[in-house]
Amino acid sequence: MLDDERYMAQALELAKRGAGKVSPNPMVGSVLVKDGQVISEGWHQKYGDLHAERNCILNCRQDMSGAVLYVTLEPCCHYGKTPPCTDIIIESGIKKVVVGAMDPNPLVSGKGVEILEVHGIQVVTGVLEKECLELNRAFFHYITTGRPFVTLKYAMTMDGKIATASGKSRWITGEKARENVHQDRNFFSGIMTGIGTVLKDDPLLTCRIPGGRNPVRIICDSNLRLPLESSVVKSAHEGRVIIATCCRDASCYKPYEKAGCQVIFVKPDEGGHVHLPSLMDILGKEKIDGILLECGGTLAWAALQSGIVSQVQTYIAPKIFGGDTALGAVGGQGVDAPDQAFFLNPVKYQWFGEDLLIESEVKNYVYRNC
Amino acid sequence: MLDDERYMAQALELAKRGAGKVSPNPMVGSVLVKDGQVISEGWHQKYGDLHAERNCILNCRQDMSGAVLYVTLEPCCHYGKTPPCTDIIIESGIKKVVVGAMDPNPLVSGKGVEILEVHGIQVVTGVLEKECLELNRAFFHYITTGRPFVTLKYAMTMDGKIATASGKSRWITGEKARENVHQDRNFFSGIMTGIGTVLKDDPLLTCRIPGGRNPVRIICDSNLRLPLESSVVKSAHEGRVIIATCCRDASCYKPYEKAGCQVIFVKPDEGGHVHLPSLMDILGKEKIDGILLECGGTLAWAALQSGIVSQVQTYIAPKIFGGDTALGAVGGQGVDAPDQAFFLNPVKYQWFGEDLLIESEVKNYVYRNC
Repeated sequence: MLDDERYMAQALELAKRGAGKVSPNPMVGSVLVKDGQVISEGWHQKYGDLHAERNCILNCRQDMSGAVLYVTLEPCCHYGKTPPCTDIIIESGIKKVVVGAMDPNPLVSGKGVEILEVHGIQVVTGVLEKECLELNRAFFHYITTGRPFVTLKYAMTMDGKIATASGKSRWITGEKARENVHQDRNFFSGIMTGIGTVLKDDPLLTCRIPGGRNPVRIICDSNLRLPLESSVVKSAHEGRVIIATCCRDASCYKPYEKAGCQVIFVKPDEGGHVHLPSLMDILGKEKIDGILLECGGTLAWAALQSGIVSQVQTYIAPKIFGGDTALGAVGGQGVDAPDQAFFLNPVKYQWFGEDLLIESEVKNYVYRNC
Repeated sequence: MLDDERYMAQALELAKRGAGKVSPNPMVGSVLVKDGQVISEGWHQKYGDLHAERNCILNCRQDMSGAVLYVTLEPCCHYGKTPPCTDIIIESGIKKVVVGAMDPNPLVSGKGVEILEVHGIQVVTGVLEKECLELNRAFFHYITTGRPFVTLKYAMTMDGKIATASGKSRWITGEKARENVHQDRNFFSGIMTGIGTVLKDDPLLTCRIPGGRNPVRIICDSNLRLPLESSVVKSAHEGRVIIATCCRDASCYKPYEKAGCQVIFVKPDEGGHVHLPSLMDILGKEKIDGILLECGGTLAWAALQSGIVSQVQTYIAPKIFGGDTALGAVGGQGVDAPDQAFFLNPVKYQWFGEDLLIESEVKNYVYRNC
């Protein structure tokens, strides 16, 4: 069992190499082990390319008889962009397969394992299951709801401020924390912010790590106020930009479209702002499976309130700004009583230099305004 | 060396038994070790009582020849409320002493060790020095500055709120975290809050753990608005209450004094509020060596700004309140630019149930307004 976990951990590391490249597919890794030696490795490298276990088997330059295949996700048994992985496993003569997590798609979950067993292959499941599920939380959320997995991210001081009283916010956290945000931008297929943040900071919202991939940039702009000379619009030809608006006058879309942006109409919520659950449905259909929400307090509150947020990343910098009027991370109307709070389940604590990142699941999230 | 650390750790645990009872003396613990066996223990139990090493030697029921004395703080060599500890060590025939931290009082630091060495006793210093210093930070601060060691404590949500937008704050943290606050109230000799908190919450500010000791309660009340029917005033006969005010009309003090409170005049700062460094000088003279500052954002800011805060305790509850108007932990004017922040050095992370406590030193604290 300890050996199983060790090999599965190795497969998990391989899976992570697909970060930012396989979406909206899951990251999957695989190793082949014979007589205590890893004789081949494979991972899903790019959306549309071969799956991890197929790569692993095709990469193998040794005799596979008696080898055990480790794979982080249940092998598929249907034709998608590639043929079923169960086929090549059966053809290879492998007699034992160890699986991390089962396929979350209720239509196919368990079927891959079933086919292998029917063909006399011994299958062990649930090895490092938690870690295997964790790795693809966004994918699993997407596959079961059709909506992107939304992570609200903010950086605040030890007294909960995201800017000084005079509005200055560069910088709250140190370099290492900010670099990690860029790693996340490489990881998530989409990044979303509100028009308020664009008007205030004019961010580029790209991933600035070498070899990184830019997420699709989504701007919530209910009244289509986005300046044509903003960095986001000006760079739309180099990386996809989606503007979500409640403006019905399609003639207003033209200049943005000419600049390379995609403008989509979203029905307004009761307050006349973009109805976020509807936007998530639309973005899901656009194959955006995960969104990093880097925004100000107004959109942060609207997003929590609308129930679209699954995860919260709180960066805490060891400093105090003070200030009655300094902005906090989450604004809006706020809850009335403490027991109406959005309850979080912190799942990970990580330090980046002096800054602490607390990653939490939103416990009671529901699509409140659907 | 590893053995030395093990015995010093045991002495440290003994020292902690004096928490809340020895102030304004330091907590000190001591063990006697012979042939790898602890043959006696001692700790400073109560202010005015015998010191740790004296207790340890007097408690010993075995032959001390060849034994090593471990003590968390350098033995004293002067007459205070008790005779010098160096005397009894020399008389006991002990030939080796292991010391944690040196006496911080510049007038005597090193002299205890010197006297022991002059008498042919081998002395090792600096074993678990960091831990020994840490245990008595408040004492060391007090002995070197004459002012109490101030710890600003607040409990906030993951988005930095200390109350909901409608002002409700019961409760932010869970039971375990709140119980720890009461442990701290037992530990600190004083607890301080502002008139705003009293008017809003009417707190009792006592220590509610069995066998606990109440800290001296200090209310910052520049204009002497404290209601006579407040819980603090009504309970003044059961536990000391100090009201710090800038009100010069001593006739206004009478009703409070009659109720058992002590009213002290403190010169006003530029804004007409209690000048906090002056108040600290006064409280230091009153033998208050440590203060837990449990207050609202206004006093928290004033305290940081005045440079009296040495340590910050931030309890973070895994929940989000949101709310543009919800109060944050530190208010006031706030800093203008991020690099003017009060920088913290987090030294300890502790979990109480779901809540995280981050204990930090204030890096750049100075008596700015002295």
